[in-house]
Amino acid sequence: MRRWNIYTPEGVQDILFESCSQKRVLESKIRKAFKLNGYKEIEPPTIEFYDTFGGERGLISQESMYKFCDSKGRLLVLRPDLTVPVARIAATKLKDEVLPLKCCYIGNTFSFDELGGGRQHEFTQAGCELLGINSPEADAEVVAMAIETIRATGIDEFQIDIGQVGFFKGLMEESGLSEDEIEEVREFIDQKNLVGVEQVMDRHQVKNPLKRIILDLPKLFGSKDILQEIKYEDIGKVATKAIENIKEVLDILEDRNLSQYVSLDLGMVQSLNYYTGIVFRGYTYGVGFPILSGGRYDKLVAKFGRDCEATGFSLGINMVMMALERQKKQFEQESAGVFVTYEKNARKLAGDYCRQLIANDCIAELDIMQLGMEESKKYATAKGFSKFVCIKNDGSREEITL
Amino acid sequence: MRRWNIYTPEGVQDILFESCSQKRVLESKIRKAFKLNGYKEIEPPTIEFYDTFGGERGLISQESMYKFCDSKGRLLVLRPDLTVPVARIAATKLKDEVLPLKCCYIGNTFSFDELGGGRQHEFTQAGCELLGINSPEADAEVVAMAIETIRATGIDEFQIDIGQVGFFKGLMEESGLSEDEIEEVREFIDQKNLVGVEQVMDRHQVKNPLKRIILDLPKLFGSKDILQEIKYEDIGKVATKAIENIKEVLDILEDRNLSQYVSLDLGMVQSLNYYTGIVFRGYTYGVGFPILSGGRYDKLVAKFGRDCEATGFSLGINMVMMALERQKKQFEQESAGVFVTYEKNARKLAGDYCRQLIANDCIAELDIMQLGMEESKKYATAKGFSKFVCIKNDGSREEITL
Repeated sequence: MRRWNIYTPEGVQDILFESCSQKRVLESKIRKAFKLNGYKEIEPPTIEFYDTFGGERGLISQESMYKFCDSKGRLLVLRPDLTVPVARIAATKLKDEVLPLKCCYIGNTFSFDELGGGRQHEFTQAGCELLGINSPEADAEVVAMAIETIRATGIDEFQIDIGQVGFFKGLMEESGLSEDEIEEVREFIDQKNLVGVEQVMDRHQVKNPLKRIILDLPKLFGSKDILQEIKYEDIGKVATKAIENIKEVLDILEDRNLSQYVSLDLGMVQSLNYYTGIVFRGYTYGVGFPILSGGRYDKLVAKFGRDCEATGFSLGINMVMMALERQKKQFEQESAGVFVTYEKNARKLAGDYCRQLIANDCIAELDIMQLGMEESKKYATAKGFSKFVCIKNDGSREEITL
Repeated sequence: MRRWNIYTPEGVQDILFESCSQKRVLESKIRKAFKLNGYKEIEPPTIEFYDTFGGERGLISQESMYKFCDSKGRLLVLRPDLTVPVARIAATKLKDEVLPLKCCYIGNTFSFDELGGGRQHEFTQAGCELLGINSPEADAEVVAMAIETIRATGIDEFQIDIGQVGFFKGLMEESGLSEDEIEEVREFIDQKNLVGVEQVMDRHQVKNPLKRIILDLPKLFGSKDILQEIKYEDIGKVATKAIENIKEVLDILEDRNLSQYVSLDLGMVQSLNYYTGIVFRGYTYGVGFPILSGGRYDKLVAKFGRDCEATGFSLGINMVMMALERQKKQFEQESAGVFVTYEKNARKLAGDYCRQLIANDCIAELDIMQLGMEESKKYATAKGFSKFVCIKNDGSREEITL
């Protein structure tokens, strides 16, 4: 007989016992934090139409999506993220809800993107979206929620880098570069290739002080103080507004005693062009990629026919699990419970006893093998039970701590 | 601008707020029951190779699976069930674990099968598998676990129908019918088409008492008493063994005080040819399909290269949700918490107060709109908050019950 395929596809994984239990504890801690902060959970489907993600005009590349057809030949995808489905739902099924609306989700998403460094093709994301409001208060609320969420995972050394898409956009407007050139500059800055940036500037005779500020972009990170070096008269209206927004957000986060977690990064020029305002990423040690990312995306819900401002973030559960493991911060597992065996005529008594333990929230397993005391004890020990109980025919109990 | 697609594909759904919260409570109750009974959770990937489900030689029809290709052109599927992945894992990654092995899962599965009656193309299954043991004790353990699981959902009026694949198999062996004819009889019995069954019997001159028993199959359901009507000398060895097995299972379930939930159905001739021993289905009122199904499948793990006996079941979470709704047994939601607004200079105090409430497991939302007392109160009422608090500049609090 030819064996059935025993392998799993690249980039997906079997999460077993201990890891799965860690993941569930993590998810429930996150879920609790979401709930207590007033975010309400939704579960969109795993399968969506390709066109829900904008098709060719979408923000996520075709190549990175798992695509297939339904029985009528329509193109479907495995959801590559959960923000777009939330936007779809906000524009349709939730369009009569009072705003602002606080939504959250925990679910698996799929991407054909490069593997490595803990990245998978199937990965679990937990996120919050705050819909229907654009203000520094709303921005700060979502950043604060991101911080709350990371803290709920048990990670305590982490940093949130905050940028503002409007700052880069404003500078580019002032520079008069074309869209293609802006994309070029964006990539150079992302790679911290200053020579490349300078070449584009010189080619287009972008003058100081604008040129200097653009060249400084990769260095514009750190504390709030860097904002003081920027002179509003040099950068134009759009960039000024962005700086004012980010200042206010930082003030509110200070009020909330969260400054210690926050760092500025004006050189954050994300390529995902969802974002229209603040953008942020969360980092911790032990993993090479951000564990969290988010920002303001005021134009996305409109793609589904409803004007609705929004901010949100999502946390990579698998990345967090990796970080917790490397930081040796995994949750302690409860003791493994009681193994209950019995003498031949005490089956009913043993069953009753087991059920009683379980009713009292104690893990209990009834011996279904009946291999005798010694073998049963070996089994219970191998399985990690902490207690071994034998119910005798006369109803008495022999208890052994393993 | 052309709008992005706002629809979801057929057979999948957006689960929103209240429903999602109900689903999470349900899942956590089930997860707790699994854990307390010693079952350990695993999370296989959503995506598997087509050949992991046996390809064309598999037990699940090609047509009912969502199929697509990876970047190398290999055929993938969205998992149509979770028992096969568990069997794959048991044969590979868990092959050195001490037996018996108790696994469980809660996850989404996918099928192109007919919709209607609450059936979806994407649906959540929760299940247990007991691997490495074939005995009436093991069979009874899994049936008992199925009962525990249904009880954990809050459904208390339900019934588990138990059959035995070996009984039908044994009768068919005795009858000397060909495989195709057996399939024919199976279908007729499933449709309770006795005329059809009789025609096949007569065509092949199957004689009494065997013929009578086969014709009686659809009537062989109810209490244990029906077993007394069957004479071992009439049915052959295989069917006799099946009856003995089911008798023992019923005795053990009686010891466990579970007889009230159990009913016999020897006419249960499931087409899914996983099963090799007992088979069972759980029913409750309000839904037209079984909410649970399971049985013994001793040959499945061997498909992946390891001889390993197994029993298990899976529960349809969506079906259970429908039943709970129709039976008006939904879980009560906790009160919606406290909405915290503040006077202009009390932002920091309000934030602190909010955080304090949350630390004490109280749902709290900080006012990020600042529309004034009246508007804020309207918002808080619309959102279902039970309490409204305003933090004054002097640090005092005004509390209003909504």
